Amino acid sequence: MLGVCYYPEHWPESWWERDAAEMAALGIRYVRIGEFAWSRVEPEPGRFTFEWLDRAIETLGKAGLKVVLGTPTATPPKWLVDLYPEILPHGEDGRPRGFGSRRHYTFSSAVWLRESARIVTAFAERYGQNPHVAGWQTDNEYGCHDTILSYGPEDLAAFRSWLRRRYQTPDALNEAWGNVFWSMELSSFDDAVLPVAAVTETGPAARLDFWRFSSEQVVRYNEMQTAILRRLSPGRFVTHNYMGFFHDFDHYAVSEVLDFASWDSYPLGFLEKFPFSEEERARFTRTSHPDVPAFHHDLYRGMAGNRFWVMEQQPGPVNWAPWNAVPMPGMVRLWAWEAFAHGAEVVSYFRWRQAPFAQEQMHAGLNRPDRVRSVGGEEAAQVGVELAAFGPLPENRPSPVALVFDYEASWITRIQPQGADYRHEEISYRWYEAVRRLGLDVDIVPPGADLSAYSLVLLPSLPHVSPAMLQALKATEATVLIGPRAGSKTRDFAFPDNLPPGPLAELLPITVTQVASMRPGRHAVAGDVAGGAGRWREWLETELAPVASFDDGGAAVVAHDRFIYVATWPEADLLGAIVETLALPRAGLTALPIPPDTIRIRRRGDLTFAFNYGTEPWTVPEAESKRFRLGGATIAPQDLACWEG
Amino acid sequence: MLGVCYYPEHWPESWWERDAAEMAALGIRYVRIGEFAWSRVEPEPGRFTFEWLDRAIETLGKAGLKVVLGTPTATPPKWLVDLYPEILPHGEDGRPRGFGSRRHYTFSSAVWLRESARIVTAFAERYGQNPHVAGWQTDNEYGCHDTILSYGPEDLAAFRSWLRRRYQTPDALNEAWGNVFWSMELSSFDDAVLPVAAVTETGPAARLDFWRFSSEQVVRYNEMQTAILRRLSPGRFVTHNYMGFFHDFDHYAVSEVLDFASWDSYPLGFLEKFPFSEEERARFTRTSHPDVPAFHHDLYRGMAGNRFWVMEQQPGPVNWAPWNAVPMPGMVRLWAWEAFAHGAEVVSYFRWRQAPFAQEQMHAGLNRPDRVRSVGGEEAAQVGVELAAFGPLPENRPSPVALVFDYEASWITRIQPQGADYRHEEISYRWYEAVRRLGLDVDIVPPGADLSAYSLVLLPSLPHVSPAMLQALKATEATVLIGPRAGSKTRDFAFPDNLPPGPLAELLPITVTQVASMRPGRHAVAGDVAGGAGRWREWLETELAPVASFDDGGAAVVAHDRFIYVATWPEADLLGAIVETLALPRAGLTALPIPPDTIRIRRRGDLTFAFNYGTEPWTVPEAESKRFRLGGATIAPQDLACWEG
Amino acid sequence: MLGVCYYPEHWPESWWERDAAEMAALGIRYVRIGEFAWSRVEPEPGRFTFEWLDRAIETLGKAGLKVVLGTPTATPPKWLVDLYPEILPHGEDGRPRGFGSRRHYTFSSAVWLRESARIVTAFAERYGQNPHVAGWQTDNEYGCHDTILSYGPEDLAAFRSWLRRRYQTPDALNEAWGNVFWSMELSSFDDAVLPVAAVTETGPAARLDFWRFSSEQVVRYNEMQTAILRRLSPGRFVTHNYMGFFHDFDHYAVSEVLDFASWDSYPLGFLEKFPFSEEERARFTRTSHPDVPAFHHDLYRGMAGNRFWVMEQQPGPVNWAPWNAVPMPGMVRLWAWEAFAHGAEVVSYFRWRQAPFAQEQMHAGLNRPDRVRSVGGEEAAQVGVELAAFGPLPENRPSPVALVFDYEASWITRIQPQGADYRHEEISYRWYEAVRRLGLDVDIVPPGADLSAYSLVLLPSLPHVSPAMLQALKATEATVLIGPRAGSKTRDFAFPDNLPPGPLAELLPITVTQVASMRPGRHAVAGDVAGGAGRWREWLETELAPVASFDDGGAAVVAHDRFIYVATWPEADLLGAIVETLALPRAGLTALPIPPDTIRIRRRGDLTFAFNYGTEPWTVPEAESKRFRLGGATIAPQDLACWEG
Repeated sequence: MLGVCYYPEHWPESWWERDAAEMAALGIRYVRIGEFAWSRVEPEPGRFTFEWLDRAIETLGKAGLKVVLGTPTATPPKWLVDLYPEILPHGEDGRPRGFGSRRHYTFSSAVWLRESARIVTAFAERYGQNPHVAGWQTDNEYGCHDTILSYGPEDLAAFRSWLRRRYQTPDALNEAWGNVFWSMELSSFDDAVLPVAAVTETGPAARLDFWRFSSEQVVRYNEMQTAILRRLSPGRFVTHNYMGFFHDFDHYAVSEVLDFASWDSYPLGFLEKFPFSEEERARFTRTSHPDVPAFHHDLYRGMAGNRFWVMEQQPGPVNWAPWNAVPMPGMVRLWAWEAFAHGAEVVSYFRWRQAPFAQEQMHAGLNRPDRVRSVGGEEAAQVGVELAAFGPLPENRPSPVALVFDYEASWITRIQPQGADYRHEEISYRWYEAVRRLGLDVDIVPPGADLSAYSLVLLPSLPHVSPAMLQALKATEATVLIGPRAGSKTRDFAFPDNLPPGPLAELLPITVTQVASMRPGRHAVAGDVAGGAGRWREWLETELAPVASFDDGGAAVVAHDRFIYVATWPEADLLGAIVETLALPRAGLTALPIPPDTIRIRRRGDLTFAFNYGTEPWTVPEAESKRFRLGGATIAPQDLACWEG
Repeated sequence: MLGVCYYPEHWPESWWERDAAEMAALGIRYVRIGEFAWSRVEPEPGRFTFEWLDRAIETLGKAGLKVVLGTPTATPPKWLVDLYPEILPHGEDGRPRGFGSRRHYTFSSAVWLRESARIVTAFAERYGQNPHVAGWQTDNEYGCHDTILSYGPEDLAAFRSWLRRRYQTPDALNEAWGNVFWSMELSSFDDAVLPVAAVTETGPAARLDFWRFSSEQVVRYNEMQTAILRRLSPGRFVTHNYMGFFHDFDHYAVSEVLDFASWDSYPLGFLEKFPFSEEERARFTRTSHPDVPAFHHDLYRGMAGNRFWVMEQQPGPVNWAPWNAVPMPGMVRLWAWEAFAHGAEVVSYFRWRQAPFAQEQMHAGLNRPDRVRSVGGEEAAQVGVELAAFGPLPENRPSPVALVFDYEASWITRIQPQGADYRHEEISYRWYEAVRRLGLDVDIVPPGADLSAYSLVLLPSLPHVSPAMLQALKATEATVLIGPRAGSKTRDFAFPDNLPPGPLAELLPITVTQVASMRPGRHAVAGDVAGGAGRWREWLETELAPVASFDDGGAAVVAHDRFIYVATWPEADLLGAIVETLALPRAGLTALPIPPDTIRIRRRGDLTFAFNYGTEPWTVPEAESKRFRLGGATIAPQDLACWEG
Repeated sequence: MLGVCYYPEHWPESWWERDAAEMAALGIRYVRIGEFAWSRVEPEPGRFTFEWLDRAIETLGKAGLKVVLGTPTATPPKWLVDLYPEILPHGEDGRPRGFGSRRHYTFSSAVWLRESARIVTAFAERYGQNPHVAGWQTDNEYGCHDTILSYGPEDLAAFRSWLRRRYQTPDALNEAWGNVFWSMELSSFDDAVLPVAAVTETGPAARLDFWRFSSEQVVRYNEMQTAILRRLSPGRFVTHNYMGFFHDFDHYAVSEVLDFASWDSYPLGFLEKFPFSEEERARFTRTSHPDVPAFHHDLYRGMAGNRFWVMEQQPGPVNWAPWNAVPMPGMVRLWAWEAFAHGAEVVSYFRWRQAPFAQEQMHAGLNRPDRVRSVGGEEAAQVGVELAAFGPLPENRPSPVALVFDYEASWITRIQPQGADYRHEEISYRWYEAVRRLGLDVDIVPPGADLSAYSLVLLPSLPHVSPAMLQALKATEATVLIGPRAGSKTRDFAFPDNLPPGPLAELLPITVTQVASMRPGRHAVAGDVAGGAGRWREWLETELAPVASFDDGGAAVVAHDRFIYVATWPEADLLGAIVETLALPRAGLTALPIPPDTIRIRRRGDLTFAFNYGTEPWTVPEAESKRFRLGGATIAPQDLACWEG
C-alpha cells in the first residue's frame, strides 16, 4: 500500500480537501502528519490549539485515508527552550547546540522527559481513539544530525548514574576500563568525566560505555513515549522511522516495544553518505547503488515482527547531499516495488507537496509547489494503479542467508579503527552486496538471534562475540563465513584471554597473533580462491592449512568444519570467490546467473521480483516458462518484472 | 596618475624627506597614509599626539604630493578594547575574536560607533581643511578577514532591532521565514536568535536576513564616517578601498555616499583565492589569470560616478597566499596600464617600502627594506615616465556589454548551494571571461540599473529578480543571456508562486520543474551550439524548441525573442559557443580575433589597449594602419600596446 | 645492551617473578618502570602506597635487572586535577583540555610545579639510593599530544612575567615586535595577550616569543625535577625520553642538565607523521624510510655527553598511526643494531607485554597478552644472543659531516612558512638523507657548536644566524653548504638591515632581493650541477657567477671560497649532485658506492655496519678482504653485516 507524509499546517486550510481527494485518487491509504507541529498545537505553555489538527484529521479521514500521527518531540518550540535551556544538547566542544532547526534536545534531561511525556499524553488523549488514526510514529528520526551523543552537564550527571548502576563500585569500573593504564583511576562515580576533550584519546572502554549509555537513553525515551501511546491509544500500532546508514544507537533495542520498524529511504542521498568509490558514485548517481535500499529493507524487516514500512520514500531530488541528482525516470516506481519485494507493508512518500519555504524547499514532493503533480508523483500514481491491479502480496518467507549486524560493532570499530579506512558499515554492506550479486536473499539479524533456519550465516564484523551469539552459532548447522576481527574484544573492550578470535576458538582452531592495518593498496591472495585484499591482515597460529594465502605464505582464508574465516579485508573479487566457490557449495546454495552489477533478484512468498539498475535491458532466463505478474521477459533499464515461482 | 601607500610611523622621521622626494621623482602624485595609525595618534584615551602626523603631511605636501588620509578605525588600540571589550567581533563558535591583529570590532556595537565617530571627527577636524589633503579613505577593507558576520551579544541585540523594524510583528517574520516548518515560530522579536550553531542548518530566509542586516550595518557605519568627513572636510573626496573576490556585503549600497570606489588589486594572491583549476593556477602563477584585475576594474568602476582608483596595487610578491610568486618581469607595469585602460584615475602601489617587521614583512614594496628601489619599483618608475609622456587619458565610454552582478545572489547561493560546487562568484567570473575572450568590453552593473544603452546583457546568476530588475529588462532592447537559477527565489527566499524563473516568465515562456545538482563530470550538450555542461541542470516545461539539448533530449538552451536561457552550468566551450554564435549575432556585436587565453583588449575613449598575458609574442592585426601610442605591432609576453581607434 | 619498559601495576603481582626471569633470559639489563603509576603510588592526597613498587623493584633487582625509574608526572591523578583545576592545559580555542588521558597539565602553573616537586621528591626519597635503581627518567615525552603551547589564564600570566623580564619596558617590546604596524602597541606588560585567536594572524615576533617562553618553561620544569633527583639520588643518571620528528621545544636546552638524552623510536609510525611522498610510504610501509631511526640517533647523540639511549623501541605494530603495519621480519633486530651502530648504549623495547586493555591495547610488546613471546620478542632475543657474543662495542668517533639543526628555525618557518609546503623538518631531513645516501656519517649539532673538527657542514635551514653561529662558521675550515632562507631573520623576527643572508654576507658576497614560494611543480636547474627545484626561489644580487641557474638565468647555486649557497629548495637529484659533485670534493670526502635507496652504512669506532632496507640482497664490495663480526658478504633484505675497518 502507499502512504504519504503531509503537513496541513504548511498550507492554507482551503487546500486540504482537494489534497485529500488527490491522495486517495493516487492510491494512497496512509497519511503521516503532525511530527513537527508542536508550536502550532501548543503555541504557548499549556495553551493547546488542537482544533486545526482535528479538522485536518477529519478531512483526511473523510477522504478514506488513515492517519499515522507523529509525536512532535523532534521540534521543541522556542518557549520550551527558553523555559528550560538545559534540554539543549551539547557538542564535543562543550557548547550547547541551539534553537533554530530541529532535534535540539538531549535524552539526558529529566525536564525534557517530563515535557515530552506531557505533549505525547496531550496528543494521545486527544487522538488516541480517533477512528481515523491508525497508528503512531514516535518522534522523528532519532539521532538525525548527530544527536545521540551529547556532552553537556545533564549528560554527565546521567552518565554517572548509569555507571553507578552498572558497576556498583568504582573499583569495578576501574578494572573494566583499565584505568590503571595512565593513572586514570577514579575513587568515586562523581570522578567520572565524559570521555571527550581530553589531551589525547580517552579510554576505549569508557567510550564504549558512553555509547552504550547514550543508546540506552534512546531506548528509555522511546519506551516512555510508547507506553503512553499504548495506554491511551489501544489497538493502534506504534512505530518509529529510522534512517539509512545510521548506527549510533541500538535499533534492535529501541524496536523491542514497537509493532514494526519503519525507515526513511533516500537512495540518492545515501550514495554520498556511504563510502562508495567515486566510480560507483558517478555510475549510480541517478539510480543509487543497487543494494542501498535493499540492505535497509532487510535490516529493518528484522527489527520487529518480520514487518516494516518505508515511512519516507524519496520522490525526486533531495536537498541535503553534496550533490542532489534527479532520479532516472522509473526509479521512483522501482524503489517502491523493491520495497514491496522485500516485504514492506506500506511505502509512504515524503512528501505530498514540495514546500516553497524553509530548510527543505529544494526537496521534491509528489506535487510541485504550484500544486501540479511532479514527475515522481506520476510514477507513484503508476505504482498505485499497479498495486490495485496486483492484489494482496504474499507473506515474507525466511531467506536462506543471514547476515549478523551488530550496532556495538559499529561503535567499537569507530572507537578503535586501528586503520584509517576500517569501517564496520562498509564491510557489512560489502558482504551483503556479495551475496546479493549472486541472486540470493538475505535476512539481517541481531547477534544472538536464532540461526537454525539458515543455510549460510555471514559475520562480516563482530568484534565482541557474546555467549548468546556463540550459542547461536553452535545451535545452527549453517555454514558460517566469518570476517576479520571477530571475537577480538571482550565486553569490556579488552583482548580476550586466549587472544582473538576469543570464544570463536571453540569453533575454529586458530589464534590471531598479530594484526596489521594496511595503507590503501591491493595485496594478492591466491589458493583455492584468489583475488585482492587490503586494509587489514591477521597472522594466524593454527594447524589448519590455508585455503588461500598471501604472497609470503601467510593464511588469508582458513576453513574448519562449517566455519570459514577470512583473516583480511577481501576486495570484491576475492570476496565474491569466497562466497561463490567456498561458502555456497558448503551451504548447499546456488548462485543465480545475473549481471552482478546491475540486476537484483528478490523473492517474496511465491513471487520473484527482478530489478534493473543498469543501462542495458536484461532478459530473464527461461522466461518462456514463467508466469509474469509485472513486466515481462525483457526488463528495460530502471524497470522491473515479477513472476510466479 | 600614480599613487603609493606610505606609513611614516613605521620609519625614522629622518627618512621622510628623502622618501617624499623619491616618490615625486618616480611620478607619484598621491600618498595614502594614516589608516593604521590610531595608537600613534591617540596613545591613551583622549590624549592626541597629532604633531608627528602634521609633520609627515607637511613633508609630503612640500614635495608636491597630495595626501589621501585614511580614518584609522580598522585598528582600534588596545586601551579601547580594554575599556570596551564589547566592541570585539564574535566567531560562529560564539567566542570573541581578540586583539592582536586588526579589524577587531563588530559593526553592531553602539559604543564602537560612538568611538569611531570620535576618532574620525578628531582626524577631520585636524586635517579636513589641510591644503595637502586631497581626500579621504574610510576605514580599510571592510570585511577583511571575515569580519562582516559577527555572532556576539551585541550582534544579536542589533539584529533583533533590525527585525522589529523590518517586520513590525512576529507573525510577519514567521510568515516570511516559513517558521512553521519545524515549529520554529517566534512569539516576540526577543525570541529571535542568530541563525548559527543550531543542531542542523537554520532557515535560509533567516540567514539571508542576517546577511542583509550585516551588510546594512556596514552601509550605516560608512555613512556615519562619510557624513563627518563631508561636514568637516569640504571639497575633498571620500572613497573606500574594497577587496577582490569579496562579496559579503553590498558594495553598491556602501558606495552610494562615496565619490568613487577604490580597490586593492593583488592579482597573484587572488589566483589562489578564486576557484581556478590547478592547471590555470600553474600556468598563470606569475601573471595571474588575464581577467582577474579587469573584472574588478569593471566592477568597481560601476559603483559610483563611473570612476575608480586602484588604491593598492601589488608591486611584487605578497605574503598572504598559500604560495607567493614573484610577478613575471613586466607585470607590475602591465597591471598599471590595464587599470588605466579600464578607466582608473589613479593606480596607487602598496606600499612604498617593504616593512622589515610584523605581519607583512614578506610583502614587497616599491622599495626594499634597505631603501633600495625594488624590481617592482623600477617598473612603476617606467609607468611614471610613460604616463608623463602620454598626457591625459580620454574619458571612459560605455561598453556594449553589461553583466549584472548581485551581492544578494552571492549570499543566496552560499546559503543554499544545492550542489557543493555551485558558486556565484565562479559563474559570474566565467561569463565575464567568456565575453572578454572575444575582445569585447564589459560594464558590470547592479541589478535594477538602466540597461537601455547596452547591446548585450548577461545575467549569469540572479536567483532573486526584483521588480526594478524586471523593469530594466523590459526597458532595454538588448539581447539578454540568462543563466540557471534566475528568478528561482522570492525576496523572502521562497519559491515564486509560478515556480522559477518567477517574474522572468513574463519575458520567456518557460517553467523550471526540476533541478539537479550534478557531481563533477562533463555532460554533452548538442544542437545549434555544442559543448560540455556540469554541476547544474534544469528541466523545463515549455513549448520552445531547444536550441541545444542534453543526450536525453532535455533542453539545455532555449531562446525566445531577445532572451536566451541557459538551463545548466555551461563549461567554457559551450559557453563560448553560446556567446559567440547565439548571443553576439543577435546583439549585433562582433568578436575580435584574439588568442582567447592570453590576449586582452580594452578600449578607453578613442584608444585601444592590448595586453599579452601569455608566453608568446602576439602581432596586432592590421597594425600597419594603426597609430600606436604605446608599444607597436608585436606585443611581447607581459607587454602591451596602445593605439588610436 | 638491551632494556625494556615494564608496568608491574598492570599485571598480577604473581606474574612479576616469571616476567623478571624471562627478561634476564632474553638478555635484558635495564627495566624502565613507574612513569604512569602516580594514582597507584598516591591514591589520595598525601597517602602513599609505595609498598607494591618496593616489591616490584626488589623482584626485578633480584633477577639481576637494573631499574630506570620514571617520575610519574605525565599522568596527574584525578584527585589532583579536582583539587587544582588550574593545572589543566588550554587549547587554542581557550578551552581546558581535560582529564581522561595523559599530559593534562600546563608548565605555567605554579601549583603544578609545586605538586610535581612534591611527587618527585617522594619518589627520590624512597628510591634515590635503592641499589637496583640505576637512573631516572624525568616525566615522559615532554610535549606529546601537542602540550608545549597552552593558552589558558595561567599561561597568560606566566607569559607576561616572562616578557617583563625579557624586555624591561613596554617600549622595548613594542619595538622588538614591530607593534606600530597595526596599532598593536602596548602601554604595559599587562596589555600583552596570547598571540592566538585574533581576527587574523598575530605578530610573528610575538608568536616566536611565545614559543621561546613555552620552550623555556619546559627547560625550567625539567631542571626542577633533575635538581631534586641529583640531590636525593647521587650517582644515578638522569635522562628524558624525547620523541621523533617533534620540535616544539628546544631539546638542546632541556638536555643541558641531563647525563644523556634518550628517545622513543617508532620507525613505522613516523613514516606517517613525516611528509614522505605516498610512493615512499607505500614502499617503506613495513621497514620505514631508511634514515628515520638514524636521523634521530644522530640528533639525540648530540644532546649531551655524546651518548644516548633508545628508551622505547618499536617491537611490532603500534596503535597510533593512521595505518599500523607489522614490521617486515628482521626489522625489529635491524633497528636495534642500527641504534648500536649509531652509538646507542641501550636499546629498550616498549613494552614487555602487550596490554590487553586501555588506549594502547593494539600496541605490540615483546610478549603477547597471553604471556607468549611475540614475533618481535623473538627478534629481540636474537639481538640479546648476538650482543652477548659480540662483547663491548667501541667508542663513537666524530663524523666527517655536521648538520646544524635549530629548533627556533622550526618555529620561525611554521610561524611564517610563506609557502604552504615549506617545512623545516623536511628540508633538514632531506639534506641529512642526501649525505647518508652517499655512505657518509653525520653528526647533528646545535647552532653555535664547535665545527672545527668537521670537513663538511650543512646548514639546511637556519633563518636566524646568531653571533655564536657566525663565529663557529668562521672558526672552522670545513666546506659549508647553506640552504635557502639562511640569515633571513634577526633575533626579533625582522629582516636584517642588510637583507638576507644577514650576517652570512660576511662570508658570502650575496644579497637576497626577492623570494618566491612556488606552487608544487618542478623547475629545471642546470649548470655545473643539474636537477629539479621547487617550493622556494631567491633572487640574488651578487658578482658571483652562478654555479647552476634557472631557465631565466637566475642563480640557483653560487659558491665562494668554502661556502656554497643554494638559493632554492633542491629536489633529490639536484641536491644529490650538489653534495656529491660540489660539496664532497671541496671537503675532501668521498662517496661510497651503495644503492642509495636501500643500503645504509654507519661506522662506530673501528667497525663498519651495513643495513639493507630494500627487497634485494646486497653484496659488500671487497668483502673478501673484510673481517666480519656480524653477517657476511651478502646482506639479505632486512639483514645487516658488521666488519672491522
